Amino acid sequence: MTDDENAAGGAAATDGGASGADVAEHRKLIITGTGIAALSAAIYAARSNNDPLLFEGDEPGGQLTLTTEVENYPGFSEGISGPELINEMKDQAGRFGAEFEHGIVESIDDSVRPFRVELANGDVYTADAVIVASGASARTLGIPGEDELMGQGVSTCATCDGAFFKGEDMVVVGGGDAAAEEASFLTKFADTVYLVHRRDELRAEDYWADRIDDQVEAGDIEVLWNTEAVEVHGSAEEGVTGATLVRHPEGHPTAKLDDDATEQFELDVGAFFVAIGHTPNTDFLEDTGVELDDDGYLDTVGGKGGGQTATAVEGIFGAGDVVDYHYQQAVTAAGMGSKAALDADAYLEEQADAAASEHSEAATADD
Amino acid sequence: MTDDENAAGGAAATDGGASGADVAEHRKLIITGTGIAALSAAIYAARSNNDPLLFEGDEPGGQLTLTTEVENYPGFSEGISGPELINEMKDQAGRFGAEFEHGIVESIDDSVRPFRVELANGDVYTADAVIVASGASARTLGIPGEDELMGQGVSTCATCDGAFFKGEDMVVVGGGDAAAEEASFLTKFADTVYLVHRRDELRAEDYWADRIDDQVEAGDIEVLWNTEAVEVHGSAEEGVTGATLVRHPEGHPTAKLDDDATEQFELDVGAFFVAIGHTPNTDFLEDTGVELDDDGYLDTVGGKGGGQTATAVEGIFGAGDVVDYHYQQAVTAAGMGSKAALDADAYLEEQADAAASEHSEAATADD
Repeated sequence: MTDDENAAGGAAATDGGASGADVAEHRKLIITGTGIAALSAAIYAARSNNDPLLFEGDEPGGQLTLTTEVENYPGFSEGISGPELINEMKDQAGRFGAEFEHGIVESIDDSVRPFRVELANGDVYTADAVIVASGASARTLGIPGEDELMGQGVSTCATCDGAFFKGEDMVVVGGGDAAAEEASFLTKFADTVYLVHRRDELRAEDYWADRIDDQVEAGDIEVLWNTEAVEVHGSAEEGVTGATLVRHPEGHPTAKLDDDATEQFELDVGAFFVAIGHTPNTDFLEDTGVELDDDGYLDTVGGKGGGQTATAVEGIFGAGDVVDYHYQQAVTAAGMGSKAALDADAYLEEQADAAASEHSEAATADD
Repeated sequence: MTDDENAAGGAAATDGGASGADVAEHRKLIITGTGIAALSAAIYAARSNNDPLLFEGDEPGGQLTLTTEVENYPGFSEGISGPELINEMKDQAGRFGAEFEHGIVESIDDSVRPFRVELANGDVYTADAVIVASGASARTLGIPGEDELMGQGVSTCATCDGAFFKGEDMVVVGGGDAAAEEASFLTKFADTVYLVHRRDELRAEDYWADRIDDQVEAGDIEVLWNTEAVEVHGSAEEGVTGATLVRHPEGHPTAKLDDDATEQFELDVGAFFVAIGHTPNTDFLEDTGVELDDDGYLDTVGGKGGGQTATAVEGIFGAGDVVDYHYQQAVTAAGMGSKAALDADAYLEEQADAAASEHSEAATADD
């Protein structure tokens, strides 16, 4: 660290010794993530002169990069591809001065100010405020064969991997928007798509439910209602060869395996897509005072007026899918990201005002 | 009303007699407004097959139509003009089936279901659910000359009216983002722009504060700190000719008119722009159970999970600047609009499910 950087680090450099690691750099604001919420926060934070630094994490661009066509982000009448929307926002944030770094945030020390943000590679940054916009990662079923064949026929991303299995029969597990969209998308490549859902109706929005109906009618999709997968078959050489499924007329069959009405059957398929939701990425908050709900999502203040994105730790804010388990739309993440940046800015200005008035009091005392 | 429309109206047509007015049409969902929040709600509602009908009100397209350049709506790296963004969203909503009508909603009767929505022209619609996204309108100072000269040199919209006063000196009253943006914009036309602010620092985001600083340095803007306007001078023939202002070294001079430190002075200007915030448009909710806060903004549930946009009346939802007095950004309005549509959809599906199960119980009872 040069003397200049040391000076910029301020109090950080002094506190830096605690863990023994060198402090790489001090920033007013660090944002964990580069998905929609993080980038929207970056656009606003950069325009507020808070020099945001974003850490990309292990899924740069977030969930939206996995979406081919975004039709419901307001402002694009003909739709826009997920990666293109992310790139636009990244350019926009960069234009106002936001900076991006590869790197995975491993922990945040909130027992000191500025916060100490430690990366997986051991680098330590300090920050006056942090916006957690680390998103959520695809959930898996935890059934035999799933982990072993991940990337070899098992996938959590149809738009990434669908084209590899042209002409095969495919399974999509799930009943929400993502599952419906993936099943619909896969009809381009698949012989038949089997949409496997444990209940007797989809959770997906009507738009998607209707498209599924159409494609069922066209013979491209077959929905296996009240059905769950219990094992994926295959090998590293052959890829996925099939799956074992169970069905119960009243749904949730794996909870009723001993019930006589539960039937087990095999399906020969060449690909197996899991689209059953996401888990928020909050491991790095483990030792902080940030509060999470029972499912691991960040608790933020919400309500009316300013400070809606504040967490239980002053100076740490949350936005996007790591907070919102319900709406989880690109535009709701964008809205929350902007709020987090405005909340962080208000916090940083308060801190600066407080520091300035302490300083002037001290100066007066010296007189 | 044709028989077909009557049938579509369902219960509405039967209830319709109460006020004596004909029911023009029944809709699943009516949205009041066509600003960012309303249009985002329309995109989502149309994709959920809720056939939204939007009433434009007296400011079609909302506040954003008054903004030349939107640089902070995430997704447009080079920015986009306000009217263009609104048009994109309108096309997008239309593409999925949203419909637009001229018309100003005058009242909503929430004592009946479906809701009765009455327009200023006397037309009555019914709706199973309503999203209030009627925005907020520009506030005025209430000083002598302001009303009389409105549209004749006094304006609440620099981007609309600035070009009419080329070469004149101009006043902009206010200290927030809008005031800073308007003052900055007007330098294109004005000889000198006097930015009149009652405190000694701007509330505007740093980006705007910095631009103002630059333009002060360039001699294009003069900021009159701790100053307020008390009268606008002029006539219908001549337009605005000047203004009377007061200044107090500690700010808020109109509250200290008797103070010796308060000085009064005249300014010769040819245009007078008022940019001091907005008042939510909620007159039409007067007789409903929808609850407002002290400033007239809608109270919604907020918090975590679904139903954040619900008001005190089941089936009426709120989004955008009519709810949010704090952030008031295009993207936060868009996020909230989408949430309102998703909340309304969940409500409408619940109602439909309840009706279906009542119907099937009635059928069983008949057996």
